[in-house]
Amino acid sequence: MRDVFIIGTGMTPFGELWDRSLRDLYVEAALAAIDDAAVDRLDSMYVGCMTSGLFVGQEHIGALMADYLGRTPIPATRVESACASGGIAVRQAYLEIASGASEVVLAGGVEKMNDGADVTSALAAASDQEYEAYQGITFPGLYALIARAHMHRYGTTREQLARVAVKNHRHGALNPKAQFQFEITIDQVLNSTQVADPLRLLDCSPVTDGAAAVILASAEVAGKLKGHPAVKITASAQASDTFALHNRQDLTHLGAVQRAGELAFIQAGRTIDDIDVVELHDCFTIAELCAMEALGIAEPGKAAALVETGETTLGGRLPINTSGGLKAKGHPVGASGVAQIVELTTQLRGTAGKRQVEGARLALAQNMGGTGASCTVHILEGAA
Amino acid sequence: MRDVFIIGTGMTPFGELWDRSLRDLYVEAALAAIDDAAVDRLDSMYVGCMTSGLFVGQEHIGALMADYLGRTPIPATRVESACASGGIAVRQAYLEIASGASEVVLAGGVEKMNDGADVTSALAAASDQEYEAYQGITFPGLYALIARAHMHRYGTTREQLARVAVKNHRHGALNPKAQFQFEITIDQVLNSTQVADPLRLLDCSPVTDGAAAVILASAEVAGKLKGHPAVKITASAQASDTFALHNRQDLTHLGAVQRAGELAFIQAGRTIDDIDVVELHDCFTIAELCAMEALGIAEPGKAAALVETGETTLGGRLPINTSGGLKAKGHPVGASGVAQIVELTTQLRGTAGKRQVEGARLALAQNMGGTGASCTVHILEGAA
Repeated sequence: MRDVFIIGTGMTPFGELWDRSLRDLYVEAALAAIDDAAVDRLDSMYVGCMTSGLFVGQEHIGALMADYLGRTPIPATRVESACASGGIAVRQAYLEIASGASEVVLAGGVEKMNDGADVTSALAAASDQEYEAYQGITFPGLYALIARAHMHRYGTTREQLARVAVKNHRHGALNPKAQFQFEITIDQVLNSTQVADPLRLLDCSPVTDGAAAVILASAEVAGKLKGHPAVKITASAQASDTFALHNRQDLTHLGAVQRAGELAFIQAGRTIDDIDVVELHDCFTIAELCAMEALGIAEPGKAAALVETGETTLGGRLPINTSGGLKAKGHPVGASGVAQIVELTTQLRGTAGKRQVEGARLALAQNMGGTGASCTVHILEGAA
Repeated sequence: MRDVFIIGTGMTPFGELWDRSLRDLYVEAALAAIDDAAVDRLDSMYVGCMTSGLFVGQEHIGALMADYLGRTPIPATRVESACASGGIAVRQAYLEIASGASEVVLAGGVEKMNDGADVTSALAAASDQEYEAYQGITFPGLYALIARAHMHRYGTTREQLARVAVKNHRHGALNPKAQFQFEITIDQVLNSTQVADPLRLLDCSPVTDGAAAVILASAEVAGKLKGHPAVKITASAQASDTFALHNRQDLTHLGAVQRAGELAFIQAGRTIDDIDVVELHDCFTIAELCAMEALGIAEPGKAAALVETGETTLGGRLPINTSGGLKAKGHPVGASGVAQIVELTTQLRGTAGKRQVEGARLALAQNMGGTGASCTVHILEGAA
C-alpha cells in the first residue's frame, strides 16, 4: 500500500445555517480544502452523509456535489454509515490513493439537519428500525441506557458526565468554527432540560448544519507542495459491532471502537501512549467516556476520573476534543468524522491558535455510527 | 495495483418479495455468494443501496448487514449513487483488494421497494430535488424527455423502443431469477399504459425487491480455489456528469457512460470489438439505446437499428442483457449493478444454461445512476 498524506483542509462554520443548502455546504468546505491544498488536480471525490434522503429528499449526492463543485467527470461516491459517514469517506479516499488508482482525492462530509424533516425520526434510522426505533426508543434514549449501565457498573456519577460537556465547551469557546463558542458550568448541565434520564440537554450534541473536507494525496504529489508541513495518515482502520444495543454483551463496552483502535495502533506501529491529541465521538457525554475506555486511554470504568483530573483538557497530558467535540463544535452527522481530521491536521501543522496542543506530533480520531455499530479510527503523524 | 478476481456470486430471486425484509434479502444473497465461493474468510464488505432511508426508514445498513450476516467486527460500508449504487459497491471492493488492504471482500447490493414508502417520490431523490423533482417531473418523465429528443434528432421510432423491451423479455424468460419470465410482443408494449409520453409501462423497469452479491479476492486467494474457472476484473471505471438533465449539452448523450467506458477500455487494454456479452442499464428502453451509443456499440443514432438486426439478441454478434436486463429481470435499485456482475460471471463461467453466450470470454457491465449523472463500467475476463 502506498503512503497517503493530507494536503488540504476546509470546513464551514458549524451551526444553524438557514441561508445554506446541503449542496452549498459541501461545496463551501470542498473549495476551502482545495484552496488550502493549492492543487488544481482532483482525481476522485467522496461525500460522507447520513440521511440527506430523509432530511432534504436528496440522494445520489456524490454526482450532485461533483457537478456543483465543477468537477465532472471525476468519480464521485457517497458513503453512509450514520454518524461515522465522514470517517469512512476519509478511509475510502485513503484506500483509493493507497491502491495506486488515484493521486489526489477529496473526502468531504456534510449534513443539513435544520430546515428539513423531523430530526429525531431521521436520526432513528441509524438505530435498528425494526427492533429499537419501532419500540419508541430515541437515540438519546439508547445512550441513556449506556449511561445508566455505566453508572450502575462503575459508579460513574451524573456530575462526572457533566464534566465532559464542560471540558468540551471550554475548548469550543476557542474554536471560531464551533456552534457553541461559550463555556458552561456543571450546574448548567445538571439543571438543563431532561432529555432521557440520566442525560440532559447539555449532555447531548446539537442539531447542526455543516460540512468539512480534506484533500488526500500520494507521497509524490504531497512531496512537491510547499504550503504546509506534511501530515501523514499512518493508520486508517474500521470495524463493526452488533447493530442493536440489546445484542451487546456489555452495554458499556464499544467493541467496534476497541477493534478499530487495535487495528490502527498495529498499522501505525504506535500505542495510545504515543498519542498527543485526540478527537473522540462525543455525541453524548457518556460516549466520550466509553470511547476513552475502548481505546485504552483509561481502564474500564476509570475514564470519568481521568476527565476530573484535567488531563484531557487543553494543557493536560492528552487533550481530548480540542475542537470542542461534537458537543460544542456541533454535530452535522456526515461531516463530524471529517471535521475531526480537519482539527487534528490543524493541530499537527501547529496552526490551532489558542487551542494549540504544544508539540503535537501524533493524533488520533475516533468516529462512530449509531450506538457504536460502526467505527473508524485514524492516526495522523505530523512532521518532526 | 493488485489483480482482483471474482470467486463467488449469489442473488435472490427478483420480484415482489413480500415475505422478505431489506436485511433478509441482503443476507440471502451474501450467503449464496459465500457458499458459491467456498471461502470462509471475509475481510470487509460493502452494501450498495440507494434509499433504504426513504423506503424502509433504515440507514447505517453496512453495520446492520455485517451483524445479520454474523460477520462483525469486519469493516462494513454502505455506498450510494442512486441506481449505480451496486456498481460502486463492486468498485470499492475492487479498490480495497487492489490496494492490498484486504484479500477477500464481499460486495452486495440490495433494495426493498415494495411494502414501504411511495416509490415515485423516493426515486425522485435520485434526480435534482431542487430543480427537477420540485417542479413535478418524475423519473419516467426525465427519461421521456431523453426519448423524445432521441426520436427528434435521429428519427428513432416508438416501435424501435419497444424492440428493446421485447428482446430483454425474451432473455428474461430464460432466467429463473427474473421478475418477469415471459415474452412480450411489440403490440403489447405499444398498447400498454402511457406512463410519460412516449414511454409506456412496458418501456419501464419494474418496482422490485432483491439483492445480489459477489465475492472478490486477490490472485493469491483466487489461485487456491478449485470450484470455478477464474474470472478477472480487468477494468473498474467510474465517472460523473451534470446532475440535472437541463444542464446537458445534448439530452441523448450520456457523458459519464462514455467517459467510464473509455477509461475501462484503456485499463483493460481492450476495445468494444473484443467484448462478447454486455449488461447495460436499461431502466427504460431508451436508456439501453443511449448507453449503446455512449459505449461505441453503435454510432450515435444507430443503436435502434442495431437492435432491429437481432445482433444484440441471444445468438447475435453481441448479446445485450442476457439476464433480461433491468426491464425483465427487475430493478431493485441498489442491487442492479451487482446483479449485472453476477450474470456476466455466470456467462464467463459457461454456466448460464439456456441463455449462455457460446464461447464468451470478455464481458462488460454498465450501471448508471439517475439520468446518467454517475456511471460505472466493469470489464471481466474469463479463462481462455
